[in-house]
Amino acid sequence: MVITMHKDATAEQIRVVADRVRELGYIPHEMPGAQRTAICITGNKGPLDPSLFTRFDGVADAVPISQPYKLVSRELKPDSTVVEVRGVKVGGGSFCVMAGPCSVETRDQVMATAEHVRKNGAHMLRGGAFKPRTSPYDFQGLKEEGLKILAEAREATNMPVITEVKDAETLPLVAEYADVLQIGARNMQNFSLLERVGELGKPVMLKRGLSSTVKEWLMAAEYIVSRGNRNVILCERGIRTFETLTRNTLDLGVLPLLRAITHLPIIVDPSHGTGVAKAVTPLARAAAATGVDGIMVEVHPDPAKALSDGPQALTFVMFEEMMRDVRRIAEVMGQSVD
Amino acid sequence: MVITMHKDATAEQIRVVADRVRELGYIPHEMPGAQRTAICITGNKGPLDPSLFTRFDGVADAVPISQPYKLVSRELKPDSTVVEVRGVKVGGGSFCVMAGPCSVETRDQVMATAEHVRKNGAHMLRGGAFKPRTSPYDFQGLKEEGLKILAEAREATNMPVITEVKDAETLPLVAEYADVLQIGARNMQNFSLLERVGELGKPVMLKRGLSSTVKEWLMAAEYIVSRGNRNVILCERGIRTFETLTRNTLDLGVLPLLRAITHLPIIVDPSHGTGVAKAVTPLARAAAATGVDGIMVEVHPDPAKALSDGPQALTFVMFEEMMRDVRRIAEVMGQSVD
Amino acid sequence: MVITMHKDATAEQIRVVADRVRELGYIPHEMPGAQRTAICITGNKGPLDPSLFTRFDGVADAVPISQPYKLVSRELKPDSTVVEVRGVKVGGGSFCVMAGPCSVETRDQVMATAEHVRKNGAHMLRGGAFKPRTSPYDFQGLKEEGLKILAEAREATNMPVITEVKDAETLPLVAEYADVLQIGARNMQNFSLLERVGELGKPVMLKRGLSSTVKEWLMAAEYIVSRGNRNVILCERGIRTFETLTRNTLDLGVLPLLRAITHLPIIVDPSHGTGVAKAVTPLARAAAATGVDGIMVEVHPDPAKALSDGPQALTFVMFEEMMRDVRRIAEVMGQSVD
Amino acid sequence: MVITMHKDATAEQIRVVADRVRELGYIPHEMPGAQRTAICITGNKGPLDPSLFTRFDGVADAVPISQPYKLVSRELKPDSTVVEVRGVKVGGGSFCVMAGPCSVETRDQVMATAEHVRKNGAHMLRGGAFKPRTSPYDFQGLKEEGLKILAEAREATNMPVITEVKDAETLPLVAEYADVLQIGARNMQNFSLLERVGELGKPVMLKRGLSSTVKEWLMAAEYIVSRGNRNVILCERGIRTFETLTRNTLDLGVLPLLRAITHLPIIVDPSHGTGVAKAVTPLARAAAATGVDGIMVEVHPDPAKALSDGPQALTFVMFEEMMRDVRRIAEVMGQSVD
Repeated sequence: MVITMHKDATAEQIRVVADRVRELGYIPHEMPGAQRTAICITGNKGPLDPSLFTRFDGVADAVPISQPYKLVSRELKPDSTVVEVRGVKVGGGSFCVMAGPCSVETRDQVMATAEHVRKNGAHMLRGGAFKPRTSPYDFQGLKEEGLKILAEAREATNMPVITEVKDAETLPLVAEYADVLQIGARNMQNFSLLERVGELGKPVMLKRGLSSTVKEWLMAAEYIVSRGNRNVILCERGIRTFETLTRNTLDLGVLPLLRAITHLPIIVDPSHGTGVAKAVTPLARAAAATGVDGIMVEVHPDPAKALSDGPQALTFVMFEEMMRDVRRIAEVMGQSVD
Repeated sequence: MVITMHKDATAEQIRVVADRVRELGYIPHEMPGAQRTAICITGNKGPLDPSLFTRFDGVADAVPISQPYKLVSRELKPDSTVVEVRGVKVGGGSFCVMAGPCSVETRDQVMATAEHVRKNGAHMLRGGAFKPRTSPYDFQGLKEEGLKILAEAREATNMPVITEVKDAETLPLVAEYADVLQIGARNMQNFSLLERVGELGKPVMLKRGLSSTVKEWLMAAEYIVSRGNRNVILCERGIRTFETLTRNTLDLGVLPLLRAITHLPIIVDPSHGTGVAKAVTPLARAAAATGVDGIMVEVHPDPAKALSDGPQALTFVMFEEMMRDVRRIAEVMGQSVD
Repeated sequence: MVITMHKDATAEQIRVVADRVRELGYIPHEMPGAQRTAICITGNKGPLDPSLFTRFDGVADAVPISQPYKLVSRELKPDSTVVEVRGVKVGGGSFCVMAGPCSVETRDQVMATAEHVRKNGAHMLRGGAFKPRTSPYDFQGLKEEGLKILAEAREATNMPVITEVKDAETLPLVAEYADVLQIGARNMQNFSLLERVGELGKPVMLKRGLSSTVKEWLMAAEYIVSRGNRNVILCERGIRTFETLTRNTLDLGVLPLLRAITHLPIIVDPSHGTGVAKAVTPLARAAAATGVDGIMVEVHPDPAKALSDGPQALTFVMFEEMMRDVRRIAEVMGQSVD
Repeated sequence: MVITMHKDATAEQIRVVADRVRELGYIPHEMPGAQRTAICITGNKGPLDPSLFTRFDGVADAVPISQPYKLVSRELKPDSTVVEVRGVKVGGGSFCVMAGPCSVETRDQVMATAEHVRKNGAHMLRGGAFKPRTSPYDFQGLKEEGLKILAEAREATNMPVITEVKDAETLPLVAEYADVLQIGARNMQNFSLLERVGELGKPVMLKRGLSSTVKEWLMAAEYIVSRGNRNVILCERGIRTFETLTRNTLDLGVLPLLRAITHLPIIVDPSHGTGVAKAVTPLARAAAATGVDGIMVEVHPDPAKALSDGPQALTFVMFEEMMRDVRRIAEVMGQSVD
């Protein structure tokens, strides 16, 4: 923490701040400059809250120097975490493809989709049974019936299942069927739910919130890991900006920096990240080219009739083409897809 | 819904889309233009999902014309809703001031603050007992002990209590003590929680999400109202933008439009909306000048030592000055503060 | 500037950075902490560029402590600047109302509008003759003919004229007719134009750019002032965010902080700030309630037939009502409107 | 254009709007729905301005259906434009690499950089001689001396030169030396400058504005093309969002959609798009993987001592590695780099 005093701060004001630093158990270092005095604080084990100091008279600003995340940080654990689910690895040099419908709608739809994506190289089956929807009047998912269909598809294709958990109430039920629990963007800061999945130990995929900074995203992951569950996968799925041509703005630029900060595996969801089917394959390639650990995409046998997110679903043919492309990019990156 | 076809869409493609519209039970009206054909849909009772049509060949775009909210809409209920809590009215021409500490920290802190704000004209006591915090290592609130302190302050000052409910698990406990349940910005799209408070019937204050459009905010309110609870207060508390001088960007500009769209009462939180104490009073005045139904502000006996959000808390003296100013603005607006 | 070293930075890496600081003429202070070492720099007269240090091995971050603006800063000149134009004051306790059409369209339109706003208490006449438009096919203004009409309206009403200058080429012509030169939001970082109006000495109103931080806005003002022209008025007119209900998001929250940072007068444009006529008066009131030095609003005799920005123009009746309201708010603030 | 009337709009109000449509020369089609009436307009040649109708009584909304851009649109010109500069093609299946320093600082710096990037496969030399800077106190470029150094480097390496033009005043001078004129992000809506470079005919690279939608960007290109200059290259360089980890948020997601809308070639600038050197190569790969026509990157012999934008400059070694990677991605995309 560095506290900057106002240009005209009095010696007494500086003394009061320095005393408060000492009172808190840290060491203040006064740095008189040409324009103003700064007070550098040392002796703290973790980051300090600027609000401890900003309200004192004469203080212009307080800038934290340390980062607030610990357990998710590569400084603490330099080697990359690999999350393993029924033999499928996320992280560690493999490129993982999670694919399936947005919502589980019918048994036929899921079985056909699961078989198609499996045949073309997908590793994990996605599909929503409990759907968080903006409108209370929209299709809310098949619930437990949907989970059963996913379990049946898992049996048939031998792919682990990833599905969203909406709330603590349905967590035990969802956890019974799911191999990976997905926390959606709107729940990224549902801290109670984060604590619950942290206690459960089952692998979790944490989507970035629509307006979350990378720092807040990592703090949300820290909630899970600090409860004892290190099996966390981060999923970039686009942030909200002023641009409306795409549904969200896929933020690939932060990923190389995120990689350097955290040891957790990172995947990208170009379906939600763009919201438009014809942009999904180009952005799946782009995501792979940044060097992430995998992608998650939505696939539907007949997107024009999908009950949710039809505009962004890949058709079966589009998925085949995407896999062909992504495989080649992953090869360039030295990652194995098969 | 208006579907726009591509410039070079074939007659056959137009026919397929029109057939689909009829199949769904609506009436397609083909409108051939100089450049392209549009298909206007009538016969639908509510808004249609564009994704029903955007994936058909030849379709350029599908633009919904109706709005998706119903029960919260002033078109459905033209007269303004007044939420009444233990004799305190929110809406209907009075100007309601909710004030108190960010977090309940000690009995003394809350009692002193409650008495001070009461004496200076506040109508409702705010204070957090269950605190959603970005970091798992930050102070998470006094929990039930905090609720008890709030209840004691209610007895002493005769002000109803508004406090945040974080999750469905603690809802019964919080509801036992609270007069108004606050849903925080990060929970605005926690649909399961919205449904629970909708079923409960107790007054709810719904804060706007950090990156939520007004439309999404109204749909979140629709979740609550559609479960039978019409006692919903909307609270604007700032959105996330690129500007970092303030903690959030208080979006007062949407309020006159929101007022025309919905019959629900609207209040403003300039404490979170700016995040800086010296901006709170000017923005409280500004909020009052837009004609809203009240404000919520954070007050602390000693902000420099607050356990959360110290930088934005008003001191006792600042609160007095704010009340004096806000009272005068409310008078100009023809609203009574007392 | 404080440079933070990586946790595992070597003593040699720290030495190299410290040497570089000395080489640049400043004094490095090494602050070894529990986790990592920081290097505080003193001896610099102004802010340093972080990029001077971030590329050195072992450096984690470099955080500037000083602010980059000087001449516009209240630290340098504590008393507020008053810009005086033909007897009209902007700043210094008066509340200035600038009003008129978006574009000059016809002599009749401008004369009628000028007389109406004058009669109802406006102090300055606005109107665009050179219009920057998003589309090359939109109405681009009446150019010199428009300036002549404005000059005629000035004669008739004795109000000074404020009009936009689009480029250096037309600056001499515009400066011949205008009393205040308006720099539009899209030109806020047109540094060559800023330098030209800085050399000219005529009063300038600098609108905030759509995606400009307050810091960038002040640096743009610094361009003008550093060329010798201290007659600069800042105008907040809304920033671009994800919300589309309003045309822009009027950022009133930064204004009390801006007031503390700079001595320049500040006005607000609720017409562009909201883009919707029925929101203009409420936001004009709100702006006045924050304590700014004035507002600029668009008024048109028949907004439904305006050649530009019709949706946001006040009718004559709406302007009267707005003036009545704003006058009362300004009174509360202790400002004189007449 | 589709005009939606309020639920309770009167027959008379609908008639007035329909009459206005006819008065403007178009055909109104009344579409009575279950909830409200819509009026579809046909007979217009181009897009209509919603503000023509939104101010009439009873009108709820007016939604444009046509797009405002014409000459830059692929609907008008289906085949992709290739911009050719001294034998170097941008567009048409080749992958063009533009590289060089942010600012021209010294003859040695430019010559060394030009030779290095040329040897490693770059096609065009970039370098700024007139620098738009946020602060008036920052290095503003070597001006004409810088242009001469670039010209000398062109002679030595046979690469065409791209350099920024800041204003109309220096355009003739810059055009004398430059092969491609770069319009910077802050000048994207400097319409006067767009008109000037439109008249000149020389190839132009138009960077996207920090807060510009794709539609506004295309309208800016339309300004240039409508003046007769079809040699326009679009350059995505990141938009401004709330995320501060990167300097900007590189918006790769819009590129596949932009490709479908316009025939103009598209390149990406990952240096400004991320602002952090270690993210540049991963994002250069990602950009290539979306299928664009090239990239522009900043390279410096000693980034730690660069006079501008040092944090984002690639070292010589980093550039070599980037070229090796990008070449392999371009191969996957079927584009030739050599």
